[in-house]
Amino acid sequence: MVDIAARVHNHKWKIDPIVRSLIDTDFYKLLMCQSVFRNRPDTRVTFSLINRSKHIPLADLVDEGELREQLDHIRSLSLSRGESTWMRGNMFYGKRQMFNPAFMDWFDKLRLPAYHLERVGDQYELTFEGSWPEVMLWEIPALAVIMELRSRSVLHKMEKFELQVLYARAMTKLWEKVETLREVPGVRIADFGTRRRHSFLWQDWCVRAMHEGLGEKFVGTSNCLIAKNRDLEAIGTNAHELPMVYAALADTDEELARAPYDVLSDWHEEHEGNLRIILPDTYGTEGFLKNAPDWLTRWTGIRVDSGDPATGAEMAIKWWTDRGEDPSQKLIIFSDGLDETKIADLHAQFSGRVRVSFGWGTYLTNDFRGLVPNDALAPFSLVCKPVSANGRPTVKLSDNPKKAMGPQDEIARYKRVFGVGAQEEFEVRV
Amino acid sequence: MVDIAARVHNHKWKIDPIVRSLIDTDFYKLLMCQSVFRNRPDTRVTFSLINRSKHIPLADLVDEGELREQLDHIRSLSLSRGESTWMRGNMFYGKRQMFNPAFMDWFDKLRLPAYHLERVGDQYELTFEGSWPEVMLWEIPALAVIMELRSRSVLHKMEKFELQVLYARAMTKLWEKVETLREVPGVRIADFGTRRRHSFLWQDWCVRAMHEGLGEKFVGTSNCLIAKNRDLEAIGTNAHELPMVYAALADTDEELARAPYDVLSDWHEEHEGNLRIILPDTYGTEGFLKNAPDWLTRWTGIRVDSGDPATGAEMAIKWWTDRGEDPSQKLIIFSDGLDETKIADLHAQFSGRVRVSFGWGTYLTNDFRGLVPNDALAPFSLVCKPVSANGRPTVKLSDNPKKAMGPQDEIARYKRVFGVGAQEEFEVRV
Repeated sequence: MVDIAARVHNHKWKIDPIVRSLIDTDFYKLLMCQSVFRNRPDTRVTFSLINRSKHIPLADLVDEGELREQLDHIRSLSLSRGESTWMRGNMFYGKRQMFNPAFMDWFDKLRLPAYHLERVGDQYELTFEGSWPEVMLWEIPALAVIMELRSRSVLHKMEKFELQVLYARAMTKLWEKVETLREVPGVRIADFGTRRRHSFLWQDWCVRAMHEGLGEKFVGTSNCLIAKNRDLEAIGTNAHELPMVYAALADTDEELARAPYDVLSDWHEEHEGNLRIILPDTYGTEGFLKNAPDWLTRWTGIRVDSGDPATGAEMAIKWWTDRGEDPSQKLIIFSDGLDETKIADLHAQFSGRVRVSFGWGTYLTNDFRGLVPNDALAPFSLVCKPVSANGRPTVKLSDNPKKAMGPQDEIARYKRVFGVGAQEEFEVRV
Repeated sequence: MVDIAARVHNHKWKIDPIVRSLIDTDFYKLLMCQSVFRNRPDTRVTFSLINRSKHIPLADLVDEGELREQLDHIRSLSLSRGESTWMRGNMFYGKRQMFNPAFMDWFDKLRLPAYHLERVGDQYELTFEGSWPEVMLWEIPALAVIMELRSRSVLHKMEKFELQVLYARAMTKLWEKVETLREVPGVRIADFGTRRRHSFLWQDWCVRAMHEGLGEKFVGTSNCLIAKNRDLEAIGTNAHELPMVYAALADTDEELARAPYDVLSDWHEEHEGNLRIILPDTYGTEGFLKNAPDWLTRWTGIRVDSGDPATGAEMAIKWWTDRGEDPSQKLIIFSDGLDETKIADLHAQFSGRVRVSFGWGTYLTNDFRGLVPNDALAPFSLVCKPVSANGRPTVKLSDNPKKAMGPQDEIARYKRVFGVGAQEEFEVRV
């Protein structure tokens, strides 16, 4: 039977919105937002879209009018009562009231600030300016919207059966990954794939497939909306934007050198247990660990997000050992460019020596490689990052110079301050 | 939105019926039924299920109670008004009123006769006795019910996502066949896969995929219900049961030798054009063609349904040539154990020399080979054939002795009468 009401209702949508909720975003964004709201609420920042895959002519693929409609729709969103209740009352990482009333009162009223969109050549310049806690919430929906509009541009040209077969192939592909991973004893994997997902519905399917296929080996999703809807754990801690903005705000080299630790000091006051995860690579993992204060060695773990993952993990293990900590009690979260083979290999290499976990992103929620002609649905490396804070440029060095960003002279200064020497380059695929 | 009414309605079904319509059957069954209704209405026949794949323990896989429920449900079916209108008014093979009013009046009132079901070891004895035009209509739904119950017995043990992935894989597999076949210029393929389909819904999907993917290269389906619902051509001519029963009714060797031609003589009076297709292999193609009357050489074509298909086709081409007919104007329909490779190969070999067409059955609508553990969904060779007519046993020799059936002494007699010598054996897979 045709559900006439549902069809008529669907006709009323002016557009088919990609992001339909303010919590269709990564959990760590909300945690960081609360931290920023508490510690640096008045910081003015600019976030900017950066397409690291220049061969993808985004402005040719994605219609500007459609992109504006999607972004405008996101600006029309506010937290629903149920979403607010979930954030206020749900247990996250074993803790109730993770989000405090002051933050929630502010978030309840929030609408996302204006955006600036301009076509430049075959790319888009897309920036967001304003107060940090507001602007930072644009990152994930902006990326998700562009990724999905790009998917749609390819899907629009396909017939009904081609589409059905496309998703049949993608499901088959994902399920083969699930079958591979469920043979890895004790592996623990979370979905980190919101920002570069093929589409919302596809991410939702991937999450359910992981949950169904991996059971307890699937520990949750970074996507709050999906976590809420599917009764799963919301997963995530913190990201590069915190040290990047703290660093940009530093007035002296001394303050700059201290900035990454200031971030974690603020975090230390707010969070404990599995939320105390160090992200050490913003200005080079080696120097970060060498100069880290002792209280950081007692944190729960480290997230390895750039460079060679095994090297990063060995560095962390050595650091803990040198500082008198037992690595086998520590957690290493791998989250950079994973596929099922890399997950299985890293797990084999490190499980037992440390506790290991994986934050699996793009090749979980957007592995459409090889499924259409010209690989027009293959994922690519799109990010949205803070580029300035209170008028000063931000810098990221990373453990992979291909992921570095910022003005050249500032990069040189940061390298000097953080003692970063020659770095090995790694291809940035996603 | 949940369609509550639809869900409540579904709860009302005592079972989930597999065959829901008397025209969920092969078109040629209806054509043959009309012919039998006109020419041999009082013949008493017995049809019997024959599982050629003895390694499939049907009675262990399919619950007897469920099988009875499905068969009982089929006995409750009668032609709906819309189905009757379609049969009376639709154009088949370019002709209106293919089914005459007398036949339709009888068919409108028909309910299928009783069945006899008994477990014998790990197999079922399933027989249908009664008047030929009634009993013959059991063949296709009985086979389809058993095939689908066997599928269900495997599917019942699978979780939701495993099921979704199973069908994703099956769709991927079928679409790859479609992609292969659409590169074959001028190929013409019909669906002949009702009897051994994985399920009704799957056959329906396969037919739509073929229609969508092959366009004009897909010429129609043998399934009347799907042809009606999807506005496609209903395809089919005649089958072995006609010569088998006519032969069993013969009183002398002379009459026996003439029986296969008597069948086609009756058919000749009723049909023309593309419905005049010889099925020559019931008692050996070679002898059939050698002894065939001249008027048969003017028929439109031949269906090659056993033995080596290329050999059968060459035999037909030589026969036409020897009898002064132009083979390039003739049609050869291949319909035995086809897969996409065999279709492409046979088409390459014979197109141009003759008109070529394919009736694609089991590996179109039930190619679940390799998709579940132990290949528990692989199709197998199940048939339902007349085993006696007016108390006399029927015999089939075929061009493959592995497909032969009947009592040994009768087989010997038929071989003598039809001059069948040594025959090459071919594995019967489906």
